[in-house]
Parts: sequence; structure tokens; C-alpha cells
Amino acid sequence: MTESLESGSAQTRDWLTTSIGNSSPDSITVRGRDLPSEVMGLMSFTDLAFLLAAGRTPSEAEATLFNAVLVSLADHGLTPTALAARLTYTGAPESMQGAIAAGLLGGGSVFLGPVEGTARFLHDILASLPSDKRSDDAALESAAAQAVQGTLDAGMRIPGLGHPVHRETDPRTPRFYELADEVGLTGPNLRLLKYVASAQREATGRALPINGAGAAGAVLADLGFPPPLARCFALLARTAGLIGHLAEEMDNPIGLRLYKEVDDRASRNAEPDLP
Amino acid sequence: MTESLESGSAQTRDWLTTSIGNSSPDSITVRGRDLPSEVMGLMSFTDLAFLLAAGRTPSEAEATLFNAVLVSLADHGLTPTALAARLTYTGAPESMQGAIAAGLLGGGSVFLGPVEGTARFLHDILASLPSDKRSDDAALESAAAQAVQGTLDAGMRIPGLGHPVHRETDPRTPRFYELADEVGLTGPNLRLLKYVASAQREATGRALPINGAGAAGAVLADLGFPPPLARCFALLARTAGLIGHLAEEMDNPIGLRLYKEVDDRASRNAEPDLP
Amino acid sequence: MTESLESGSAQTRDWLTTSIGNSSPDSITVRGRDLPSEVMGLMSFTDLAFLLAAGRTPSEAEATLFNAVLVSLADHGLTPTALAARLTYTGAPESMQGAIAAGLLGGGSVFLGPVEGTARFLHDILASLPSDKRSDDAALESAAAQAVQGTLDAGMRIPGLGHPVHRETDPRTPRFYELADEVGLTGPNLRLLKYVASAQREATGRALPINGAGAAGAVLADLGFPPPLARCFALLARTAGLIGHLAEEMDNPIGLRLYKEVDDRASRNAEPDLP
Amino acid sequence: MTESLESGSAQTRDWLTTSIGNSSPDSITVRGRDLPSEVMGLMSFTDLAFLLAAGRTPSEAEATLFNAVLVSLADHGLTPTALAARLTYTGAPESMQGAIAAGLLGGGSVFLGPVEGTARFLHDILASLPSDKRSDDAALESAAAQAVQGTLDAGMRIPGLGHPVHRETDPRTPRFYELADEVGLTGPNLRLLKYVASAQREATGRALPINGAGAAGAVLADLGFPPPLARCFALLARTAGLIGHLAEEMDNPIGLRLYKEVDDRASRNAEPDLP
Repeated sequence: MTESLESGSAQTRDWLTTSIGNSSPDSITVRGRDLPSEVMGLMSFTDLAFLLAAGRTPSEAEATLFNAVLVSLADHGLTPTALAARLTYTGAPESMQGAIAAGLLGGGSVFLGPVEGTARFLHDILASLPSDKRSDDAALESAAAQAVQGTLDAGMRIPGLGHPVHRETDPRTPRFYELADEVGLTGPNLRLLKYVASAQREATGRALPINGAGAAGAVLADLGFPPPLARCFALLARTAGLIGHLAEEMDNPIGLRLYKEVDDRASRNAEPDLP
Repeated sequence: MTESLESGSAQTRDWLTTSIGNSSPDSITVRGRDLPSEVMGLMSFTDLAFLLAAGRTPSEAEATLFNAVLVSLADHGLTPTALAARLTYTGAPESMQGAIAAGLLGGGSVFLGPVEGTARFLHDILASLPSDKRSDDAALESAAAQAVQGTLDAGMRIPGLGHPVHRETDPRTPRFYELADEVGLTGPNLRLLKYVASAQREATGRALPINGAGAAGAVLADLGFPPPLARCFALLARTAGLIGHLAEEMDNPIGLRLYKEVDDRASRNAEPDLP
Repeated sequence: MTESLESGSAQTRDWLTTSIGNSSPDSITVRGRDLPSEVMGLMSFTDLAFLLAAGRTPSEAEATLFNAVLVSLADHGLTPTALAARLTYTGAPESMQGAIAAGLLGGGSVFLGPVEGTARFLHDILASLPSDKRSDDAALESAAAQAVQGTLDAGMRIPGLGHPVHRETDPRTPRFYELADEVGLTGPNLRLLKYVASAQREATGRALPINGAGAAGAVLADLGFPPPLARCFALLARTAGLIGHLAEEMDNPIGLRLYKEVDDRASRNAEPDLP
Repeated sequence: MTESLESGSAQTRDWLTTSIGNSSPDSITVRGRDLPSEVMGLMSFTDLAFLLAAGRTPSEAEATLFNAVLVSLADHGLTPTALAARLTYTGAPESMQGAIAAGLLGGGSVFLGPVEGTARFLHDILASLPSDKRSDDAALESAAAQAVQGTLDAGMRIPGLGHPVHRETDPRTPRFYELADEVGLTGPNLRLLKYVASAQREATGRALPINGAGAAGAVLADLGFPPPLARCFALLARTAGLIGHLAEEMDNPIGLRLYKEVDDRASRNAEPDLP
């Protein structure tokens, strides 16, 4: 009795449902579109990724920015995530899914997470403003100053600012602003992030560049994605980078040599000190 | 002494190097291209994913097929991978990277793996032919018949054929052949796969449709990717689907209710049988 | 030059070192002990796990409590973690490491994380007390009341209290207190947790039982482990439970049937409503 | 109608059930035993891990060998799995479950997998013998010789033999044989493995030592575990080692420095060669 109710009678809508994808013997749909006739050959993978998460396709302008975000986050060289993926491939070359998963697992608060962190910081500032003030420059500037001061007072760092390598300018950031301007989509998050950087400089006397992860987070927020999805798209982007690293590792492995060199050095260092 | 040699003197090239991505204080490059000026706003994410793995950008025709493969594999509803991702989010909603990783880990021999399995089966047949015979229809047909018979004799299934739901025709397959024909890229793997299906029908008397995963594997092989990378791109595609499921799970969670229903049913079933 | 310094000259100790384990052609050591002659056959796995993390072996009393914590957290039926592991096995039965990893990834803030959360909550209260007051009952009671009030005022829940199923008493909790008493190791964290529960009852007028995860966290804290390691041991314990589920899944699979049933129900629910 | 049948009527037993663990408001059981009164304080974690997978508790002799296997596989220094876990912690220190999962994912065909590979190789040889011949030394010797020859003829390596570091003797192996002898549990797998090593030496003229992973696999097989569970227990053991590495990484991090050093070296190597 309970079971049949749970299974979705006319009276009570069953909770076990999805609008992401479905299939029947004759058809496969994604977000309600027929896969072979309405998606394959007609929609790019990037547009589909946007559709799956947002429930709508991006405009051409939005697709330009969305692609720019994804390419900007795809790879950054032999980062901890790339190294973890390669070392996992060394141990389990038959399980590419494990190597990719291991690489993604390092996308936390320190790496990739700042995309989400910046989106959240900006989101919370904007949410504190009345909706008719969210495109008002004076209101954005003042809200940024207040949020920055509060964050610094709490002893925390401002998300989206500063980079250990790109100390003067992160080369991705001006490009994001330029592109958003070109396609006419400089939204409240991108604008607010500039005020945040200014407020930080005024409050501390030390200029920190807006980093690429932060600008990417602002763009994703302007595209309408909630902060956790900003992180998810950073992970989607990085998956492509990890595949590149694994393709290279297959041809030209460094994982085993890295392990040997590390292990040898650690073994030498473990030797007892002689008098 | 050893250390300085290992670090790449003029004489011996250091093994610790990558051509996937690099950064300096002023620049970020991917596969040797300047990220802000040569990639962002100019190259789609899909093209970059191709470039990172292949070391070259796709032609327009190749990009059409590559996108078609990725969209075809992005989602298939509440599959085990989608369920694993959602249930992981239920337990660790603060770690989106964990939910995506858990979803990808089910992309093994049973799910998604058939993309790689088909690519490998076709690859091995083609590798057994002299290179000047790989576009010869008669040679492909005969090699397919031989490989199919050998596989069936060994008691194994032919990769890329049959589907538990799409028993007559997998709707993705004819679309792949149509698209490849349209863009003029019907390569030896796609052609060979048809001969494999015919040979299987002849050998067993039972027609099995070429499934979408198999056709996708053939397309990726025709695009030049080795079998393990075929699996990797299936995983990249599925990452977009998993993000869709997680976006839906954030708004309309089913993970906890699924767990409760399963656990309740299992608990009832665990009760000792009464006389 | 830099290289040789990094590699550990007599002057600067190389940072690349570990005291967890080392091997040479003739020997293998863990935490400095010879594996074959000092560990195998002489030390239990549980004692070694304690040693690896703490750098010292547990006393017999400590080992009793440590084992009790691990067995208490090993399994809790068809939880989201067990389901994610089983569904991952369904897709990738050749990669047991992936199934176990997928199961562990759900050990976040909602499941298993409360072990760490409680340890951290208690740790922060104790750290706020002068060290000579940490075994003073009046000081513990007063600090508990203050921390509970502050947490409730901030609109947050008190870690370690309440359970969705064990609403009156979590059967593990009294057993932990009994065992700790028996072996003479009722430390400040276990004592403080009782004051926390009392303070919560007084502040809200509603009694919530100390849950098993919370008591386990308190025991691990009393054993000297910092909060993140409390989570780690919960994950070690759960690994044994996941292996049990995978052993059962190998003999008597439920993953594929669960997927089929879920997918069928979702597909029915996706059908458009007819007039 | 279907639903109610699926849910387990008196006529058809519901498939959705588990014997691993269950809980009700008043009780928690694991493998049918009451957790607080029959397990906590009375059963070690190792014995519970055995019980959960095997459905029975080990004898004292079995527990001795099972603990010896687990301690032997717990750690081996800065292996790829330990490095992947540490590098993942570097990026996501808030998600210990991700760091442990990343470490385990490298437990594939190259690392840890040989435990399973050896168990499977021995299992297949024994399965080819009539059951009354499985403790007959002459039959074991002859079957070993045949299997080794077949494997070498197929161009494959014999599992369980040889080690890149321990070239003469893996110090764990004689200890396993000694312990098994002491407790009176030298089973057919351990005996067979010695004949396998002899056969390999005779066939190739080159002696390879039985490695520790291989001996561990043989012990687990003699304890009655099927090959995939042998891998699982290697992963359980390694989880303890990974926790040790993460505990050390928390106090004395090497992940970020390793990344920096690798990235710097790769960046220098990426510089274009000057004339």
C-alpha cells in the first residue's frame, strides 16, 4: 500500500524523478531534448554542459564567456592534481577513471576551490543588497568596502585576490574583463570584484591582483550559476587538463621516475646521523 | 653530482618535463599557446580538450564529430554513476569534487568502458592488417569475420554490439554514421564496426544493434585517439552529466530519500521469518 | 647549486623525508621498527594503525577503546556510502579500489564527519580552558554551558547529539562510557561531552542523546588524536564495512537491480501527464 | 502490482536485503551480532573485518596470520599512493576522505594488485586439480610447473615473484612461512607458491624471490578469501598507512614543496633551447 503510493499514483507525485536525462527503447533525451535529432551534430558539448546544469541553453555571448572560463581553468602544468593523477596511473594504468578521479579530488579549498569561494563571497555581498541596488556602482563600492573590512577584521583573506606566481597581474583576469565587455555581459559580479580589489588595496595599503580563479568565479556567477556549480565547472575544465596529462603520461611516463627519485631521497634522508 | 645531472644539463635532457601546460610570472601557456591571447575567447573548450590530448587542434569536421561523441555520452539518466554521485553528495555536500569523483569511478568495464573496449577491439583488428589494406572493404570484412569468430570461440562477447534497453536500434548509432558521412570522415573504424556487426549476425544468426558506446568508440578511434583515451573522453562527457545531476540534487534532493527507502526495505526484509 | 642544497647537505636538513615507513634492499621498517621481526606476528593491525598515526603504540587500555571505536563505526547497513560502493562495483567490478574509494567519499559532513565535528567542538572548548582546569568538573560544566549557548545563539546544531533513528538512546554511547570506565580512561573529552548534552537539554528543554559518532569522537580525542584524524579513523573503520558489502555484492548483487528499479520508476514518472 | 511483489511478499523474497549490518531504534547489529553487547569491547577491529567479509570469526591462528598480512601491507614509504594522498591533501585539506580515496585509487595492477594477482594465479591452479589432490605435494609441484610454463610461453610474468628493491629476499616472505608454520596453517596456496617459485627458476634459470605481496595473497587465499577480497584487504591495510602519512603531512607538510620543486624544474626544462 505504502509502496504503491511511493511509486507515484495520480494523487502523489513520486519524488524519484529526474529531468537531466531519460531513455526508452526508442529514444534518449537530455533535458527533454531528443539526443540524436536535437543535440548530436547540432549542439556543442560546452552548450550541453551549460544546458544540463542550468536547464537552458546559453546565448552566443554567454557561450563565449563560458568557454573562456573552462579553457582558463583546464590546466596549470604539473600541479598537485596533475601529479596525483599521474601517480595513480602509475599504480593502476588499467583504471583511467581512478586516475582522473584522484586528480579531481585535489580540487578543494586550496586549488580550484577559490573559484567557488570567490563566487560565494560576491554572492553574499550582492544578496545583502536590495535587488534594485545590485547594478548601482555606488552601492556596489560601498558594499564591497564593508565586506572587505569585515573579512579582514575577522582575520581572513579576501577570496579571488593574489596569486603565488602571478604577483603583479594574473594574465587571465584582464582578458576576462575584455571579453565580457566585448560580448556585453559585464555583470554585477565582475563589477563588484573590481570594487573588492580596490577596497582591499585601500584597507591594507597593498595591491593584490584579481586572480584568474576569482575572475572565473565572478563570470560563472554572472552567468547565473550558484557557487557550488562554479566549483563543478572548474572540475569539468580540469578533467580535460588531466586527460592531457594522462595522454602524455602514457607516451612519456614520469610517475614512476618521480616516485623513485622521491623515495631514494627520502631513504637517504632517513639514514641515522653519524657523529 | 647526480642531482645536477638529473636536473637537466645541456648533455642529458631532464625527464621531468611536460608539454601540457606551463606558467611563469607573466604568462600561462597550454600546449605552447598563450592562454589569454591565443585560447581564451578564441578556442572552444571542446577544441582545447582535443588539443590537450592530441597535441593538435581538430579540423572543423573533426570538431563536429568530437562534440557529437561527447554529447552522446554525457548522460543516460539515473545510472549507477549518477546515483553514486548523488549519494556521495548526500553524505559530503561540502565536497563537490568527491561527488563527481565517486560518479566517475563507476565508469569501468560495464559502464562507459565499452567505449574503450570497442576502440581496442577495432584497433587490434586494424593493427593486424597491412597499412595499405586498412581502407580496403574486402580486407576489413574478412578481418572482421575472423576476429568475431575468434572472440565467439573464446566464449567472449563482441564489444560494441547489443544494448539492454535499445534492443532494435540504438538511436545514437545511425546518427553517428550520418554525421560522419556529412562531414566526410567515415574512417576505417566506423566502417569496420559495421562489418563486425554483420559478422556477428552471420556467425550467431542473431542481429545485435551497434550500440552508441561502440559507435562513439569507433569515432574516437577514427579521430586518432588510442583506446584508453576513448575511455577518458567518455569520462569527460559524463562529468557534464554528473554536474547536471548534482545541480538537480542541490535543488531537489533524492539521495537521502533513496537511502531511507532502501534502508527501510532492507530492515523489514532482515526481520526473522515467523512461523 | 640550489639542487644540492635541496637534496640535504650536512648544513640543511632535506625536507623530503618521512618517518612512516622506509625500505632498503634488506629491510622494511614502519615507524622505525623492523617489519618482519618486530611487527609481523607480534603487533595487531589495530595497534599498528595507532602507531602509524600517533608515533607510539597504545597501552592495552587504549587499544581496548581504540578497537571499540573502530568496530562501532565499521558498518551501519545500506547507508549512502555502502550504496555508492556497491553501485560503483556494478559499473567497474574489476576495480575494487574504485568501489572502496567511492564509498569513502561520502564520509563527509553529514555521515562520519560528525566524529570529527564532535572532536573539534570538544577540543575547542578544552583549548579555551587553562590546562589545570581541564579535569575540573565545575570548569568543564561551565565551559560546556557557555559553548552550547554560543552555538545555539549562532543558529547551529551541537555536534554529537541526536540521531535520526536512535531517538532515545544510541546503544553505542553507554557502552563507550562503560568501557572507558572499566579500563580507567574516562578522559576530559568524554566527561565534557556529558556536560554538553546536559547544557543542551537545559538550554532547549529537549533532551537529545549523545550519539555513537559523537562518543567515538570524544574517545579518539581522549586518546590524543587531533580532530581530522578522528575522521580518518572513522574512514578506516568504514573501509572494513565496505569490504563486507562488496563481498556480499560479489555473491549476491543488488546494485544492478537497484539501478533498474530506480531507472524504471524515474522513467515512468518522466512520462508526460495525460489529460 | 509489480511493486508489491518486488517489496517482498511472503511468496517472493525481496532481493533488497543485506546481512552485513542493520539498525533499529533500539539496536545495531553487524553480521547478526549485537554491536554494543557482543562486539564493542569484546572483538578486535581486525576480527570484525574478517567477520564482515567472511561471515565467520577467525580462529586465533587465523587471526595471527590475518593481522600479519595487514601489517605487512600497511606501508612502504613514499610510494605513489602515499604521494597521491599527500598531494590531494595539499589541495583539499578539509576533505580527508578525498585524500585517502586518492591514495587508494593507485592500488591497481602495479601496486597492491599483485596481492590479488597472486591469489588468482594460485586459485586457478588449485581449481584445475581434483579436490583430493590439492594437498598432494607431487600434484602441486606438477601443476605449478605446467602453469608457470604456460604463463611464460604466453609472454607473461609470474605473479608473486621478484621485487625491484628486495632482489635477493623480500624480508616479509620467510616471516610469513615461519608464522604459518608456527600456528599450523601452512595451506595449499602457500605450499603451491613455493613450487611456483621453483618452477620459475627451473624454467628460466634465474631465481626470483617470492615477494611479500605474493606471500600475503597466498595467506589470504589459504584463509578462504577469493582473489578480489585479497585486493580489498591490501587496501584496508594501506588505509592505515595513508592515515599515518596524512598525520605526518598535517604536522610536517611536504606536498606543497614537492609540487613547487617539480613545477620549477619542469618550467626550467620547458624553456626553449638557446643557440
